[in-house]
Amino acid sequence: MGKPPNAIRRSDKSRKATLAAALDLCAELGYSAVTVEAIANRAGASKATIYRWWPSKGAIVLEAIDEAGLAPKTFPDTDDLAADLHTQLCGILSVFTDQRLGPAFTGVLAEGQLDPGLSQELRERLIEPRLAQCYTRMRNAQDRGQLATDADLDVAMDLLHAPIYRRHVLGYPLPTPDYLDKLIEHTLRVLAPASATTSSRARRDLAEAPPNHPE
Amino acid sequence: MGKPPNAIRRSDKSRKATLAAALDLCAELGYSAVTVEAIANRAGASKATIYRWWPSKGAIVLEAIDEAGLAPKTFPDTDDLAADLHTQLCGILSVFTDQRLGPAFTGVLAEGQLDPGLSQELRERLIEPRLAQCYTRMRNAQDRGQLATDADLDVAMDLLHAPIYRRHVLGYPLPTPDYLDKLIEHTLRVLAPASATTSSRARRDLAEAPPNHPE
Repeated sequence: MGKPPNAIRRSDKSRKATLAAALDLCAELGYSAVTVEAIANRAGASKATIYRWWPSKGAIVLEAIDEAGLAPKTFPDTDDLAADLHTQLCGILSVFTDQRLGPAFTGVLAEGQLDPGLSQELRERLIEPRLAQCYTRMRNAQDRGQLATDADLDVAMDLLHAPIYRRHVLGYPLPTPDYLDKLIEHTLRVLAPASATTSSRARRDLAEAPPNHPE
Repeated sequence: MGKPPNAIRRSDKSRKATLAAALDLCAELGYSAVTVEAIANRAGASKATIYRWWPSKGAIVLEAIDEAGLAPKTFPDTDDLAADLHTQLCGILSVFTDQRLGPAFTGVLAEGQLDPGLSQELRERLIEPRLAQCYTRMRNAQDRGQLATDADLDVAMDLLHAPIYRRHVLGYPLPTPDYLDKLIEHTLRVLAPASATTSSRARRDLAEAPPNHPE
């Protein structure tokens, strides 16, 4: 026996209000200062209702980030691998830099480093589905001869994604979209099929040749 | 007027006891649960004395990690760049995996992501001095023709160091020493001087050829 339609509508409204309250409060107070009680108050829900749906503050925030959909789960495939990787990495970057999502994601990421359970939820909910799509996209590129068939895709994932995390974790400025292109270019060059290595190096040398005009 | 020798000896002993207490307590309780008061009790010092020397728990822990010296400040230079990078990256890895230092470093790294002041101390005290040495070592390799003169060293720093941080932050298993070698090999290949690109690729293909024996 399901709930009557009105109750479902009401609870979906309450669920969305809770997720919105969690993101807003993280942006206003910083993740550490936000409590489940404050989220309940802001959402006009009871603490008991919230705990019926989510086990913890971290779980609410993770769901809110996921539903905000800034980093699309579906990896683009335009047949231009570098462009598609740029789109996906900019999606990840936007979760860090977005005024509303950034403080929530930053907080849940930091707390996950001291809480293995939350870290596992973070991987399962946000990271793994997107990573799986990225692997699929890279394997398609291998099938099309755009990447070496023996290219190490685990290394590729690290080279492409890790700089954003390192810079965030150590408090350095995040990569710019131009810098992401540079990372993508380096990564694809080292993973290129053997026949393409020399010519892509030559293309790069050509592209970087100083312009031929008097100074 | 300096302190008499006995007072200096006493205070140095007390300083070392405080640093040791901080690391031990982090390993026993986890960073979050450690207080300045608990450190003072364990070290047999007063809280007032500790606050005369350090502004916060984070500052004590940073100094303790730095003095433990697991990640050497002096970058090796054996003229084998790959081997030297391996030594340095294993040093960074050991700070994460060491039973005594790991919980302290993990904690201060996580807290730094929510505390810009602590993050700055972390960079100034632990990261920057080592990074500067790494840049110097890479520039020496450029001077010796082992890296392209136009190799982008900022990209190199990211490709080499970032995977350790990404894996730690997301709770994935840290790179193994063998995996670090793979990362170093990929990074040096993409930053090799133009004349070396084809031959290093050929060497790799040779090294990865399947062994010639029946299965």
